[in-house]
Amino acid sequence: MKTPQEIVSFMYGNDEFSSLLGIEIFAIKIGNVDLELSVKESHTNGFKIAHGGISYSLADTCLAFSANTFGYKAVTTETSISYFCKVQLGDRLCAKSHLIQKGNSSAVYLIEIHNQENILVSHFKGTVRISKDLW
Amino acid sequence: MKTPQEIVSFMYGNDEFSSLLGIEIFAIKIGNVDLELSVKESHTNGFKIAHGGISYSLADTCLAFSANTFGYKAVTTETSISYFCKVQLGDRLCAKSHLIQKGNSSAVYLIEIHNQENILVSHFKGTVRISKDLW
Amino acid sequence: MKTPQEIVSFMYGNDEFSSLLGIEIFAIKIGNVDLELSVKESHTNGFKIAHGGISYSLADTCLAFSANTFGYKAVTTETSISYFCKVQLGDRLCAKSHLIQKGNSSAVYLIEIHNQENILVSHFKGTVRISKDLW
Amino acid sequence: MKTPQEIVSFMYGNDEFSSLLGIEIFAIKIGNVDLELSVKESHTNGFKIAHGGISYSLADTCLAFSANTFGYKAVTTETSISYFCKVQLGDRLCAKSHLIQKGNSSAVYLIEIHNQENILVSHFKGTVRISKDLW
Repeated sequence: MKTPQEIVSFMYGNDEFSSLLGIEIFAIKIGNVDLELSVKESHTNGFKIAHGGISYSLADTCLAFSANTFGYKAVTTETSISYFCKVQLGDRLCAKSHLIQKGNSSAVYLIEIHNQENILVSHFKGTVRISKDLW
Repeated sequence: MKTPQEIVSFMYGNDEFSSLLGIEIFAIKIGNVDLELSVKESHTNGFKIAHGGISYSLADTCLAFSANTFGYKAVTTETSISYFCKVQLGDRLCAKSHLIQKGNSSAVYLIEIHNQENILVSHFKGTVRISKDLW
Repeated sequence: MKTPQEIVSFMYGNDEFSSLLGIEIFAIKIGNVDLELSVKESHTNGFKIAHGGISYSLADTCLAFSANTFGYKAVTTETSISYFCKVQLGDRLCAKSHLIQKGNSSAVYLIEIHNQENILVSHFKGTVRISKDLW
Repeated sequence: MKTPQEIVSFMYGNDEFSSLLGIEIFAIKIGNVDLELSVKESHTNGFKIAHGGISYSLADTCLAFSANTFGYKAVTTETSISYFCKVQLGDRLCAKSHLIQKGNSSAVYLIEIHNQENILVSHFKGTVRISKDLW
């Protein structure tokens, strides 16, 4: 069975969208991968703050990477996110995952996104379906 | 008060992220803006299908544009999304918004994302907080 | 295979909590069961309006009955609900289900709850896991 | 301004539905109220396990009590819940609230429900709107 590092390395290498966004890997261990991202001009919306899709995509990549480290391919089925404060151009976001339940065929994670001042900017919950396909 | 077309035109013109994703406006009327997007190589994830952030960001832009057409500035507070089938490279996604509730300070929308074969690929629900600031 | 009427009749007959709440069946067809409930004194909360658990439980029963009419046992895994207006003592609530996606092992429903004045008081979304056990 | 104990005591005294369900207060402090409930025959559904409305209503009461302890009247606007394992007749459920964000007009809580074996049976997230009305 592949290690968490091998799996995440492979996923990250193929993940064109996470690369486009400038998502960086901060830490990898079994069950949890922490990510970071700096908000750029190309991430802003019509209010000139970060588009909701930025925090969301960071959390969704964090979920995907975290849930696949157990060795079986897992895909997202349902998620929700709350936005607590504006994310500004230049902010540095950090996503940390917390596994709250894992069964044979599904798992649920909470993901917190903090900014560089350690303020909780978004809270994400995601469910994945775990397949029987090994990485 | 500005028209829905003026508001959406202004938001869209400043929305760097929607532009980066290649989001296109299909129709604008008060309360509803329909959008489209073609899935490109840069939108794919580690499974070589569209990253969840693509459908999500399309829906979130659809929510933002739709909810701002009433003339007051509105920002997203909470959303959820369900993924029903894989979105492939080359797929054409269409997002349509349905306002289900509107009060003085908040509104709730459902947004359906269909692909070019009219299959429902994602279902999104979003809540916005409506400010007293006119566009 | 049992009919939707037989399945719902059996479930309803054993459902002590729906009986305690006074939930009534309005219509049964394959994929959809519509329910009604009158708000009683015992349903109120600390604000003397209906407890959120009343609309929720009505919707959850509606989901369970609707999703089981296909003949296979199905259980709720994740739900969300939005509350749009207060439900008063004496109100008559009606829950209608809308199947938005059905796969082999899961289904997603939207459920709308209206009061006697046809005002949308709550909007519910629920996911069920469908087993291979026949009723 | 009333104390958390006075507010919760008043709400609990008027909360007919929480009383009907047999909800008990375990601990009260500012921002957090922990509750307990024993699953009775009248709480079961068509599968003879606890109806989803039981865990939900326990969590919703926990949210309402917790969010009102700050002294201003607060009402639930949106919630979601995940069900991780079956709740059986005779189980003892404990709901604990965790405030994750509080602004001037809204707050978001996570609520965990464990059974008597300390297994996480449900995870709930709830948003409340905070009014300017003092208790």
